[in-house]
Amino acid sequence: MALLSNVAQRSWSNVKMRFNKTHVEKKLFTPGPLGCSRTVKEAMLRDLGSRDSEFLKTVKLIREKLIEIAEVSPEEFCAILLQGCGTYSVEAVIQTGNPREGGRVLILINGVYGKRMKKICDSIGIESETLEFSEDSAVDLGKVKEVLQRGEQYTMVAVVHCETSSGQYQPNAAYFVDAMSSFGAVPIKIKDGQIDYLVSSANKCLQGVPGFSFVFARKSELLKCKGNARSLSLDLVDQFENLDKTGQFRFTPPTHSMLAFLQALHEYQEEGGISGRSRRYKQNCSILHRGMEELGFNRFLSDDCSGYIITAYYYPDHYNFKFEEFYQKLSELGQIIYPGKLTNANCFRIGNIGDLYPTDMKHLLKCIAKVLDGMGVPVPVPVPAPGS
Amino acid sequence: MALLSNVAQRSWSNVKMRFNKTHVEKKLFTPGPLGCSRTVKEAMLRDLGSRDSEFLKTVKLIREKLIEIAEVSPEEFCAILLQGCGTYSVEAVIQTGNPREGGRVLILINGVYGKRMKKICDSIGIESETLEFSEDSAVDLGKVKEVLQRGEQYTMVAVVHCETSSGQYQPNAAYFVDAMSSFGAVPIKIKDGQIDYLVSSANKCLQGVPGFSFVFARKSELLKCKGNARSLSLDLVDQFENLDKTGQFRFTPPTHSMLAFLQALHEYQEEGGISGRSRRYKQNCSILHRGMEELGFNRFLSDDCSGYIITAYYYPDHYNFKFEEFYQKLSELGQIIYPGKLTNANCFRIGNIGDLYPTDMKHLLKCIAKVLDGMGVPVPVPVPAPGS
Repeated sequence: MALLSNVAQRSWSNVKMRFNKTHVEKKLFTPGPLGCSRTVKEAMLRDLGSRDSEFLKTVKLIREKLIEIAEVSPEEFCAILLQGCGTYSVEAVIQTGNPREGGRVLILINGVYGKRMKKICDSIGIESETLEFSEDSAVDLGKVKEVLQRGEQYTMVAVVHCETSSGQYQPNAAYFVDAMSSFGAVPIKIKDGQIDYLVSSANKCLQGVPGFSFVFARKSELLKCKGNARSLSLDLVDQFENLDKTGQFRFTPPTHSMLAFLQALHEYQEEGGISGRSRRYKQNCSILHRGMEELGFNRFLSDDCSGYIITAYYYPDHYNFKFEEFYQKLSELGQIIYPGKLTNANCFRIGNIGDLYPTDMKHLLKCIAKVLDGMGVPVPVPVPAPGS
Repeated sequence: MALLSNVAQRSWSNVKMRFNKTHVEKKLFTPGPLGCSRTVKEAMLRDLGSRDSEFLKTVKLIREKLIEIAEVSPEEFCAILLQGCGTYSVEAVIQTGNPREGGRVLILINGVYGKRMKKICDSIGIESETLEFSEDSAVDLGKVKEVLQRGEQYTMVAVVHCETSSGQYQPNAAYFVDAMSSFGAVPIKIKDGQIDYLVSSANKCLQGVPGFSFVFARKSELLKCKGNARSLSLDLVDQFENLDKTGQFRFTPPTHSMLAFLQALHEYQEEGGISGRSRRYKQNCSILHRGMEELGFNRFLSDDCSGYIITAYYYPDHYNFKFEEFYQKLSELGQIIYPGKLTNANCFRIGNIGDLYPTDMKHLLKCIAKVLDGMGVPVPVPVPAPGS
C-alpha cells in the first residue's frame, strides 16, 4: 500500500493545484459534448429528489415540450427519456424494436454512426444487412429502392440523419432515424416521413448538458415490442410504461442534467425554436465557411451534401502542419476543435453548434490564422485537391 | 396543431413562472439521488470537450483515486466508469461476466435490488437461481453454504451489500457485490473478500451528482469475458479497453458529472476518507435513531441488521396519519424523505447520507414533530409492535 499511496498522494496534489487555479473558459467547436449557456449550467446548482413532485413536473414538462418540438401528436407518439448517452438510445431502439428471433435490420451507412449501428446489432445477435455509401456523398435512393424491392423482409430500416437523407419505405419494417446531431436545428418530418423511432440527445442542438438521451416512438409500434429487449436497462417499453404510469424513472435519473435541459428548452423557445436556432447555426456556419475559404482550406463535402452543423476540412498539404500541434495551440487559445478523424481521409472537423455566436466564429478564425502563422504554415494554406 | 400548441403554450407559461421564482433549497434524506455540496455542484459550471487533455486528465485522476479508495492494487483491479445510472453497471457486470451460453447466476436476495438482479438475468436470458431471505434479517450463511455445496455449478454469485452480508465462495464462480449504497462509507474488503466485481455510483456515499456509475473489476476475470455481452453499450470489456487504451470514452460522457465527481473526491479526502465520512454518517444516524425513538417510532430492522445509511420506520398506527400528507408537509418545510415503500411492510425510510450534517438531522426531527402535531397525530406516536 505504501507505494500506491505515494502515487495517489502525488496525483492528488495535482487535483488540489487544479482547484486552486482559475480556469480558462474554453469554447467548444465540437459535435458534442458541446458548450451550453451559463444559465443552463446554473440550473444545475440545485438538488432535487427523483420522486419529489417538483422533479416529476420537470420530467413531464420536458416530455411534453419535446413532443411539441417534434411536431407530432401526443396520441400517436411518446417521448421517452433514457439515462446515459445517445448511443444507449440507439441501442435501446434496436434492442426493443426487433424481435428476439428472426429480427433483420437494414442499415444505410455512410459514416461512423451507421457502422456503430451494425456493431450494436452484432453485439445483441440481431442479423443485419448494410448498404454502404461513401462518406462524401448522400445515400443513393435508387440503390435503397432496389434493395427494398428485392423482396427480402426486414424488421427495421435504420438510417443516420445528417449523415444520410431518408430512404424508401417497406411496409412491415419499422423505420428508425438517428437524428442525434440534427434534431431541433434541422427540420425532420417525423409524421410525414413515416418514421417510427427517432433518437436524439440532451447535449446536441437543444443545448442541454450530457446525461441522457431521448427517443420519439410511435406508440402503436412500440407497444408491439414488449419482451423484445435482451436488456433491462435498455428496454424502451419498460422505460416508457414506468414513465407514463408513475411519472418516475425506473432507476436513478440524472436530476441535474434534467434541470439544465428544462432551462435549455426555455432558451430554445426564447430563441425562436427551430427557425431561430437554425438561423444562428447557419450564420455561424457561413462565417466559418467564408473564413476558412479565405485561409485556403478545402472542404471535404461539396455544398449540396454538407449541412450546417459541422464541417470537415482537409489538412493543409505542408510539412510544417501537424494536426496535434494545431489542435494543441488552438486549445491554449481557448478554442477546442474536434480532434476525431473521418474514416478515410486526412480531415479535421469544426462544429458550429451549441452556445456559439457569430463573434465566437470570427474569433476562432483569427485564432486559426494566428496558430498557422506560429507554425510557419503559409496562408492561403496549400491543400490537396478535393478527392485526390 | 392548434390545440396542441395551446396546451404547450399553457404548460410553457408555467415553466417561465417557475424560473422567475426563487427556489427553496430542499434537503434530501433519501437513498439517492442525494444532496451534494454547493462546491460539488459549482464544479459543473464549465464545459469540457470529451477528447480534450484536461478532461482526459480528469478521468484518469478519478479512476486512480477510486482504485485508491477501494484499497486494491491497480495491477489486479481496474475502475471502469460507465455512463448512466447504477443499475446499468449492475447489468453490465451480469451481461459481461457470464457466458452467452450456459451462464447460471446464484442471486442472494433480501430486498428489491436483489430482485432487480433477477429481472436483469431474465431480460438477458441468463439462467438464475435465487436464494431469498426476509427483508428484516441478514443472509443466512448456513443456507448459502448448503446451496453452494450441493454441487451445482454457477458462473456468478451475486449479492447486494448493505442488504446482505457476504456469502460463501465457489471456486469457479465470479463473485459480484452490488455496493451501490455503501461504497466509500462502509468498509468492504474487496481483495480479502475474493470479490471479482463491485459496483457503486457517483451519487452515493462519494457524494457526486448522478450521471455515471463505476465498476471495480478483477482484470484477470474481466479479460476472460470478451464477447459475452449481448449489448454494445453495456459491454464492460469494450468500455474498459477503450478507456485504458485511449483514455477516452467510447460514447459521449457526462462531462459535467465527472467534473463534479472530481470535486466530490477532493471533499471526500478532505473529510478524512472512509473514516471521516463514516463517522459523520454514523453521527447523523444516531441522532436520527435517538430522535425518532423519542417521537415513538419503531424501526423496521433490529440493531444488529441495520447499517448507518438509511433507516426504515413503521407508520404510526393512528387514523390521522396518512403517509402522503406527512411526506408533502415535510416537503413544504424543505425536508424530502424517501417515499418508496419496502416490499412487505407499511414503512417509510429516512436516509442520512449525502451533504447532511448533525444540524440537518436535528432540524428534520423538529420538522417531523411539527408535522405530526399539525396532522393531529399524538407524540409519542402509537405504532404496531415490530413484527406484528
